[in-house]
Amino acid sequence: MHHSKSASSRLPVTIYYEDTDAGGVVYHSNYLKFFERARTEMLREQGICQRDLLEQSIGFVVRSMEIDFLKGARLDEHLEVLTRLIEKKKASLVFCQELVNPDHEVLCRAIVKVACIDTQKMKPQGIPDAVFSEK
Amino acid sequence: MHHSKSASSRLPVTIYYEDTDAGGVVYHSNYLKFFERARTEMLREQGICQRDLLEQSIGFVVRSMEIDFLKGARLDEHLEVLTRLIEKKKASLVFCQELVNPDHEVLCRAIVKVACIDTQKMKPQGIPDAVFSEK
Amino acid sequence: MHHSKSASSRLPVTIYYEDTDAGGVVYHSNYLKFFERARTEMLREQGICQRDLLEQSIGFVVRSMEIDFLKGARLDEHLEVLTRLIEKKKASLVFCQELVNPDHEVLCRAIVKVACIDTQKMKPQGIPDAVFSEK
Amino acid sequence: MHHSKSASSRLPVTIYYEDTDAGGVVYHSNYLKFFERARTEMLREQGICQRDLLEQSIGFVVRSMEIDFLKGARLDEHLEVLTRLIEKKKASLVFCQELVNPDHEVLCRAIVKVACIDTQKMKPQGIPDAVFSEK
Repeated sequence: MHHSKSASSRLPVTIYYEDTDAGGVVYHSNYLKFFERARTEMLREQGICQRDLLEQSIGFVVRSMEIDFLKGARLDEHLEVLTRLIEKKKASLVFCQELVNPDHEVLCRAIVKVACIDTQKMKPQGIPDAVFSEK
Repeated sequence: MHHSKSASSRLPVTIYYEDTDAGGVVYHSNYLKFFERARTEMLREQGICQRDLLEQSIGFVVRSMEIDFLKGARLDEHLEVLTRLIEKKKASLVFCQELVNPDHEVLCRAIVKVACIDTQKMKPQGIPDAVFSEK
Repeated sequence: MHHSKSASSRLPVTIYYEDTDAGGVVYHSNYLKFFERARTEMLREQGICQRDLLEQSIGFVVRSMEIDFLKGARLDEHLEVLTRLIEKKKASLVFCQELVNPDHEVLCRAIVKVACIDTQKMKPQGIPDAVFSEK
Repeated sequence: MHHSKSASSRLPVTIYYEDTDAGGVVYHSNYLKFFERARTEMLREQGICQRDLLEQSIGFVVRSMEIDFLKGARLDEHLEVLTRLIEKKKASLVFCQELVNPDHEVLCRAIVKVACIDTQKMKPQGIPDAVFSEK
């Protein structure tokens, strides 16, 4: 009774001009984009395509985040997003996500609660069975 | 037989951190956002709400742009987008748009061709009568 | 011994296409941009220009956020960001920020901790006296 | 007397929620980000790091673009940016860039003129020798 190994993942991220701001580091809201890409790829590894879900009116939406911005990421850095599923309920998932550099420093860390909704009614609905199913 | 005065408009734009990049000026693709906001407000002045259109499967999409990036806009600048309709056809509109500073310098200029489409079929469709109608 | 009335502010925000995603509502990280615009304007009301600060190597950076995404904002909505300073320390500020619609529904709420740093050394530094000074 | 093989390149791009808008396809200005990533990687393949250049006050800025938006890219699509250097002058480069899908359809095409500038003086300067040098 354990989560499959797909309950954690790594995604490489390169910092481009589009991600930075005049302060010289990544604009704070852009870290959320990196985390969302990582969750998307984690679903994809399980054979889940969000576009297909959307066509069935099933969407995952971020309900809440606690996020610490620890150290600014800079242009041209090659980083990695580490994602772990830490809780799975009937209609929600909680992830812990970290953006780390090659020296294993954590630049940004977030606890992200995601809900599964019916995108027509904008109401909670059960997570499809295929998503983070236990073995 | 002339266009109504709504064929030109002005929209103020303030430059925030989100708009800039590590080069210290506005990231080039963000000028396109300012221009799109201005076209949206120009439609709104005519009583056109794009969300209502979208619910009828009518959308305006940018088909092509010629854009000159003349001078970088900086954090905290208060600028203005000047927009003029320069051509109206059955299913397309052409705008000339400029981002100008208080000294009347043009920082960015674009010729933008916009098409009206059926968003279900992704095919051209006639522009609704209410849009840029002549008096 | 109280904060000046500038310790709270309101900023109108209109939702444009650039803010939305394929789910039909505002992409979650974009709410952070609206909040940052509001904090910037709150500083501006006190005569503080972030670009001037940046030239003196003084920057405000977001250290942490707790954010609840309560209801998705839609294209063409006219909303308002309400911002209150809830704590001021030597080198940090804490704000409570809400995005509300005309029916007074809160769409998004965040507690935002901002630190003042020396942007050369990337180290904390005291907040300039002019910022949120008490009467 | 010909350009090295590095005068053309391919970069894979995946479409995430962050890239799309309420119309269901990629927001038009975001194609410019994909093209900029591809130019950055093309420089990187030649051993050029833009952050190092920036520290020497050398920057590449987009001067002008002609861009055709031919077909909207959708969530979860796996695309490729094809980039070719089509002109090299003392202080400027011209690229032709295309975003293509696995069926070889061109979704977006741009001619992009990039200038090399001194980022302190914001004036043109010669392109460093290492960039797109001929064999």
